[in-house]
Amino acid sequence: MDDGAKEQRDPAWWGRRAWSLLSAVRARAPLVQCITNLVSMDIAANALLAAGASPAMVHSLREVPDFTPRCDAVYVNVGTLSEDWLPSMRAAASAGRPWVLDPVAAAASGFRMEACVELLALRPAVVRGNASEILALADRSVAAASNFKGADSSHESMDALEAAKALALSSGAVVAVSGAVDFITNGEKVVGASNGVPMMQKITATGCAVTALIAAFVAIEPSDALVAAACALAIFGLAGEIGMESSKGPASLRMHLIDTLYFLDEEMVTSRVRIALRP
Amino acid sequence: MDDGAKEQRDPAWWGRRAWSLLSAVRARAPLVQCITNLVSMDIAANALLAAGASPAMVHSLREVPDFTPRCDAVYVNVGTLSEDWLPSMRAAASAGRPWVLDPVAAAASGFRMEACVELLALRPAVVRGNASEILALADRSVAAASNFKGADSSHESMDALEAAKALALSSGAVVAVSGAVDFITNGEKVVGASNGVPMMQKITATGCAVTALIAAFVAIEPSDALVAAACALAIFGLAGEIGMESSKGPASLRMHLIDTLYFLDEEMVTSRVRIALRP
Amino acid sequence: MDDGAKEQRDPAWWGRRAWSLLSAVRARAPLVQCITNLVSMDIAANALLAAGASPAMVHSLREVPDFTPRCDAVYVNVGTLSEDWLPSMRAAASAGRPWVLDPVAAAASGFRMEACVELLALRPAVVRGNASEILALADRSVAAASNFKGADSSHESMDALEAAKALALSSGAVVAVSGAVDFITNGEKVVGASNGVPMMQKITATGCAVTALIAAFVAIEPSDALVAAACALAIFGLAGEIGMESSKGPASLRMHLIDTLYFLDEEMVTSRVRIALRP
Repeated sequence: MDDGAKEQRDPAWWGRRAWSLLSAVRARAPLVQCITNLVSMDIAANALLAAGASPAMVHSLREVPDFTPRCDAVYVNVGTLSEDWLPSMRAAASAGRPWVLDPVAAAASGFRMEACVELLALRPAVVRGNASEILALADRSVAAASNFKGADSSHESMDALEAAKALALSSGAVVAVSGAVDFITNGEKVVGASNGVPMMQKITATGCAVTALIAAFVAIEPSDALVAAACALAIFGLAGEIGMESSKGPASLRMHLIDTLYFLDEEMVTSRVRIALRP
Repeated sequence: MDDGAKEQRDPAWWGRRAWSLLSAVRARAPLVQCITNLVSMDIAANALLAAGASPAMVHSLREVPDFTPRCDAVYVNVGTLSEDWLPSMRAAASAGRPWVLDPVAAAASGFRMEACVELLALRPAVVRGNASEILALADRSVAAASNFKGADSSHESMDALEAAKALALSSGAVVAVSGAVDFITNGEKVVGASNGVPMMQKITATGCAVTALIAAFVAIEPSDALVAAACALAIFGLAGEIGMESSKGPASLRMHLIDTLYFLDEEMVTSRVRIALRP
Repeated sequence: MDDGAKEQRDPAWWGRRAWSLLSAVRARAPLVQCITNLVSMDIAANALLAAGASPAMVHSLREVPDFTPRCDAVYVNVGTLSEDWLPSMRAAASAGRPWVLDPVAAAASGFRMEACVELLALRPAVVRGNASEILALADRSVAAASNFKGADSSHESMDALEAAKALALSSGAVVAVSGAVDFITNGEKVVGASNGVPMMQKITATGCAVTALIAAFVAIEPSDALVAAACALAIFGLAGEIGMESSKGPASLRMHLIDTLYFLDEEMVTSRVRIALRP
């Protein structure tokens, strides 16, 4: 087990870390290049802006050499993958900036799985997916028809924990599995983050948006991607919890979640973030 | 006149059918592949999720062979048509799943009209458009400058009823014409659905979103696409009516409409759906 | 100094002009072709609809010959520029309709700057950007790493006023620089528009949306693009001010801003638009 394990056993430590990272995002406004799917662009950009980061949806291969080196982090998401975007994803992932991968619906097709596997070899700092995506990616397997739900998960996050650890060890990335509890692991240490409400799954691209937020946190804390990812997941989930208090359905929750990302304060974060190191 | 006509003369029958189909969408979460325009992706995905379906915005030709056969329905929308997306549309429409076509702004150009005519030959279960789109499609005519309004209609739905019937007979599809009253026809039977509020036309891509919802309903009831389409149109319109009660403009209506799709209950649906078989 | 200067010294004149132009947009619903970035499509289309215009997101080169001549104005935005969209931008800009350019993040790359310079030579009626974009475009310079913020500005609008005047004179376009005060200039006359609230910058693509609105106003008043641009900027900013009164964060502001565009009335516009001719 690596350093930091002792202090990370204290739940209050995580609240302070989450607040410290969110404050740094607001103060430094990291520039995050997003090569993300067409469905998620609006919510991902708005989540980044509300949290204090500076999103840049730049996907042309022609722009990567000039633009990517000036970014603080890169976010790659294969949700609406096409052949013409894949070279840009590869190039941006290879530009030397810390980067984060969202393998949306990895099992949807052989083409998509191959792309994910290839991107994984380019050493993302973090991979975040739901349980079905992480299970598929760990297995390199395209889904069978029986229980495939596209971008939605047909598994609980706990089901994918061992796969996540194996994937982290084989890829060198921190792997985060979203679910009722989010698990974040580097293959040895496992952290659970349990903020959030079920209705967030009824808003399209919330998973994409939180992965974008992870990229902003990794921009601030590139040397500890596990802590960055856990804090980003908890902050986003907390924004959903607080937003839910004013919401009647998924569309009002979407609005209140983004608003809450903007006005979260130290008391809310330190008292309500729920992250725990697993024994 | 085909079977079912007698019971369909009872307005209460439609309310029960609409509720039964919505309940089945919620219970079975049909996977709907959407190859839709760039403007509509967010609202279409969120409308499907709020109604209980599972949207998948997958448009690469490379993914159709693996992915489309596992879907419960396919939705094709030409709103932001480009040459590179057309082969995927053709392939997904030909994959043997029930599918639905939205011929957005069919008259905008010769290129678009040709694409729509070609797609129409691939036997969609349902075609839904506004009156101007259905009139143009029935005529295979690119619009004259005089009254062309892009994706907006410059005709009333009743103006397009005969064109819709002719189009249904020639194509084999159920044809739905949106308007103050939506008309749905298989060329013989005509059903009118009159839920909805005018302000829905001031929200971009509501037409695209309701066509996506039709695809989810067709996934549940592929053997009676006319009933599926009428019920989806009425449910979406009802969500707009109830949403309008809390709205000050088109953006709050958009939010409340999606929220309402999520929390619609049996009493609301059976008492307020307004569908009638036309004599 | 050109004609109109005397009456334009009266602040009340601007309020009346803004109301008159907004009323004309509502009455005539100009068709605005938008070739805009993927992030902005939803908010740009919804802003145009709420203001009374008819947006058409049509970007295929195949459609320009049939479609663009029937539009009342064209809007080109390079926010998510790619090589395959650039020919359509060029063609639409060359189709003889009044058109407006948004050079989003012009300094992001050499590719993007070249595209902006090339488009600028096609004589837009208006160019609107933030201070960093206008400074870069006036200089034809790709940003240095030191203070580059992607699509966000790292300069105040006043810093770019001289650059805007020079750019207007060299290009023949009206140039608008957004900021706490928006400056609009034809190279000689300078108008300041000071409606708006800072939180609008925390909503993605508000700049893109207001440029779309400028295109709708230019469609109504092609012979005085400076007045059209100033009034559109003030109206959009005013919608943000009024929307802010009901908002808790950027997502609720986005909703209330669009709603307000829809319900703005003569009293609100004439009493609260703040435009002034600079001495």
